[in-house]
Amino acid sequence: MKLSEIGEFGLIKAISQIADKGQGVVMGVGDDVAVLRPSPGQVLLVTTDLLLEGVHFQLEFTDLYRLGQKALAVNLSDIAACGGRPTAFLVSLAISPAMEVTAMQALYKGMMEQARQYGCSLVGGDTSRGKEWMISITLLGEAEEGKVVYRRGAQQGDRIFVTGHLGDAALGLKQLKSGVREGYLIERHLVPSPRVKEGAAIARQGLATAMIDISDGLIADLGHILEASGVGAQIHLPQLPLSVSYREHGKPYYKNPYLFALAGGEDYELLFTAPEGRQEAIAKLAQELHTPMTMIGEIVEASAGVTLVGSDGRKIPVEQRGHDHFKKGG
Amino acid sequence: MKLSEIGEFGLIKAISQIADKGQGVVMGVGDDVAVLRPSPGQVLLVTTDLLLEGVHFQLEFTDLYRLGQKALAVNLSDIAACGGRPTAFLVSLAISPAMEVTAMQALYKGMMEQARQYGCSLVGGDTSRGKEWMISITLLGEAEEGKVVYRRGAQQGDRIFVTGHLGDAALGLKQLKSGVREGYLIERHLVPSPRVKEGAAIARQGLATAMIDISDGLIADLGHILEASGVGAQIHLPQLPLSVSYREHGKPYYKNPYLFALAGGEDYELLFTAPEGRQEAIAKLAQELHTPMTMIGEIVEASAGVTLVGSDGRKIPVEQRGHDHFKKGG
Repeated sequence: MKLSEIGEFGLIKAISQIADKGQGVVMGVGDDVAVLRPSPGQVLLVTTDLLLEGVHFQLEFTDLYRLGQKALAVNLSDIAACGGRPTAFLVSLAISPAMEVTAMQALYKGMMEQARQYGCSLVGGDTSRGKEWMISITLLGEAEEGKVVYRRGAQQGDRIFVTGHLGDAALGLKQLKSGVREGYLIERHLVPSPRVKEGAAIARQGLATAMIDISDGLIADLGHILEASGVGAQIHLPQLPLSVSYREHGKPYYKNPYLFALAGGEDYELLFTAPEGRQEAIAKLAQELHTPMTMIGEIVEASAGVTLVGSDGRKIPVEQRGHDHFKKGG
Repeated sequence: MKLSEIGEFGLIKAISQIADKGQGVVMGVGDDVAVLRPSPGQVLLVTTDLLLEGVHFQLEFTDLYRLGQKALAVNLSDIAACGGRPTAFLVSLAISPAMEVTAMQALYKGMMEQARQYGCSLVGGDTSRGKEWMISITLLGEAEEGKVVYRRGAQQGDRIFVTGHLGDAALGLKQLKSGVREGYLIERHLVPSPRVKEGAAIARQGLATAMIDISDGLIADLGHILEASGVGAQIHLPQLPLSVSYREHGKPYYKNPYLFALAGGEDYELLFTAPEGRQEAIAKLAQELHTPMTMIGEIVEASAGVTLVGSDGRKIPVEQRGHDHFKKGG
């Protein structure tokens, strides 16, 4: 059955049935507004991300269940990046009326899988016909006010850390474009793992001075921390965490594995800075959570800009540059 | 200068300069998330609305300042419909990189005009290039938990009220489509007046048992109240509030002014139900706020459905029907 047959209100009903009312939800899908009861003493976090067909995803590369997972995951990653706990989300969709209802349900089921895994509820949204697919998600979260980690706190002498591995998702996209259709790297591109529990633990333990998630490539997102904090950075290329799959399958796609990993987008790993002396606590947390947290460099004075240090000790200054949705070639 | 020249981050900077940090905003535009401090003892309200070029608006009919005003106004109207107070909003945009920066600024200035008028702050968003324009706004608000008015509280015997006038916006759109380019009705279509203070006062005084804003036409939105409350309704056509302009300019566009006013969308007036005996208090409030609040019918048992009563007392049963974004002819 197609959306044009059940109509907008039929779709809203179908979505209400998928949505489950979570903790703190007074009124979910189905009224003019969603009504939520905030936890006392917590600040409210809000983030929103837009995914457009042809810009952020290709329907030839992904099924709708995975697309749903990713659409929520990229928002969860933003909440993770400030150390928050996700609570509720709203989904706005533009889709073709010729879309099958079961395909739509797969998209929502993908979102709900992530929602359950990370403990948040679908509470509202809007839908419209459109020529191209568009998914706009707004995710709410909570945190203790004094524990929220921003981009602006990095200080000279701080060490720079990153969770997980770099470049896998960018390499997976390269593989998809070259005709490969499955494998670990492609999965990393299609369904990122938002570092929600890692971000929350880092914030709760007060380990980081600044934090961001890597969506536009490490160099670009590091640039946001540096700009907000008024500092520079030095990155040690041989210390960058690269996965076994990345090293094994990358040869046809990159000249230099380190530079590709620094520029590649959609890692959705956390990049954070911490004063010297916290390495041990960070290593302990990494072990507890079974998530690598690797020291990759240090914060320097602003005038030094960003420098990459190779295995031979040679320093390469870099122009900060990542994905830009409006600039040509961005 | 075009967006492709300043880039995504240039745009974010330009927007940060327009945004002003309001009360309760700990961190606004520019980090991974916005951080807000909820007012103690209040519930959080969230609503989102999607506007697509060619579906919800035509760029030949509106300038970008007014489009910005309307984009926020339709969300403000949802917060009004539950009796809430708007606090903060996020804007996601898909636009062409060839767009002039000044045009973009006009859009944001339109939103900020409404934001200032109704007391809320721009705190975040996302932007992307897209072939067609898309504006997705999420608006947050607050209310006292026990005072929130839902769709589900209408009871048999309640009177039905509506604020302002009906059909003006739908008639304005007809005029635009026939080549007219200015006038009161067209303004009503381009920039609706969200009934924020009216909704909040109705809720605070506990006047309404159910409330909704009229976006899809009175009959369709009344249908939502009836369905949620498990009741029927009787509407007296001669009591429908029609503006002088509507009566004067409508002849070429409608056969029956009442039926057109009931079906026409985008009034963004409030439709609410109240038990008998509250007419006087409602009339007093209408006078204080200088906003007409007109009794147009009453709630009956569910099995009676919806009936329209003409000036001759003749009853016409109606099939509920309003705008549906997926159904043909909807």
